[in-house]
Amino acid sequence: MSPQNRHMIAETPEIYKMVVEPYIKSTPASRIQWVYNALEGTAEAERVVLRDEADVETGFVLLPDSKWDCKTLDTLYLQVLVLRRDIRSLRDLTRSHLPLLRNVRDRVCAVVPAKYGVQADELRIFIHYQPSYYHFHIHVTSMRYIAGPNISIGQSHLLDTVIDNIEHIAGDYYQRCTLHYVLGERHPLFERLGVPLSAEKRESEETAEGKNMLGDK
Amino acid sequence: MSPQNRHMIAETPEIYKMVVEPYIKSTPASRIQWVYNALEGTAEAERVVLRDEADVETGFVLLPDSKWDCKTLDTLYLQVLVLRRDIRSLRDLTRSHLPLLRNVRDRVCAVVPAKYGVQADELRIFIHYQPSYYHFHIHVTSMRYIAGPNISIGQSHLLDTVIDNIEHIAGDYYQRCTLHYVLGERHPLFERLGVPLSAEKRESEETAEGKNMLGDK
Repeated sequence: MSPQNRHMIAETPEIYKMVVEPYIKSTPASRIQWVYNALEGTAEAERVVLRDEADVETGFVLLPDSKWDCKTLDTLYLQVLVLRRDIRSLRDLTRSHLPLLRNVRDRVCAVVPAKYGVQADELRIFIHYQPSYYHFHIHVTSMRYIAGPNISIGQSHLLDTVIDNIEHIAGDYYQRCTLHYVLGERHPLFERLGVPLSAEKRESEETAEGKNMLGDK
Repeated sequence: MSPQNRHMIAETPEIYKMVVEPYIKSTPASRIQWVYNALEGTAEAERVVLRDEADVETGFVLLPDSKWDCKTLDTLYLQVLVLRRDIRSLRDLTRSHLPLLRNVRDRVCAVVPAKYGVQADELRIFIHYQPSYYHFHIHVTSMRYIAGPNISIGQSHLLDTVIDNIEHIAGDYYQRCTLHYVLGERHPLFERLGVPLSAEKRESEETAEGKNMLGDK
């Protein structure tokens, strides 16, 4: 399959309400059944690094990402799955979720150094938008791991920045902001967003291989 | 020279005022003489892509980054140097700078597609913090260029997000927010920030090569 063209999307609150939220609601629940299995302990139980179930509002399960070999510290990659099932993405976060977000940060920053020896200030803890599935989850990687996970602007948001935005800037920051992200043309959202592909653009894509260099001037 | 350890820094407004701003003021003016030469046309004149001098408040010079060969569109990399000399970094931006930021965005998004055939929604336009020099400048790259410039969270900020934060969230967003970034231990700011390196930590760094794998359990 040839690489797809990708475009920078500006998702205003209006576009979220009119296009993205209906899309999220249309995604089949079966897509996140594996998350519920992990939360309930019917799957992945032996892989769990930390299970914080003291309070369903702030609780979560921490487990290795499937891309990590669980050995090489430079490519350390964990995922946090929150227990509560009512947060679909970054867009849903409000001041009421600060105890959850702080609990994740504080416990991850205590457990990962103790278990793996990677210090808290050598971790990247971040959230994807768009995420690959709509049950709220958080990525934890070693700062040395730059080639693997997508940590680029236009896709990723540092958990610390998210907490700061909600706590110190505006409680409804993520309902009011415009979120910018890179979307491939094969993403199911792409067509719904109706990004115009001009005739000239399509033509230039068809001949892209012959056009990816500028002629000498 | 061995690779340096890097740490995630949380720069609160207080830390900016007490540590970072004095550091910026202490950097010699000679470091940005090359910028003034480019703005005045006494250097790099033949490389300039666009010179917008209609209004000194909103004007800028657009020129290829020294890392770009000026041919390969997938690695397109331009830099915007603003004409005004009173903005040192992202931290200084307020509502009064919106006309400048919008002018840069709008003109870059018109000129780059016309001159290079890379469409506006295939560009990443972003600001570094910490920047490598303290005269306000903006990076413009092709979205396909991911290996070269640092486009990661904890270093880069999309211009569109910056405009949105100031315009729709809070005019003093960049004076009130905590900025998170990755800093190497050899950066001159690192020691000033007084990030604690524990004895245990230093020891683990000294033997890092022998410790970058977890033993089998």
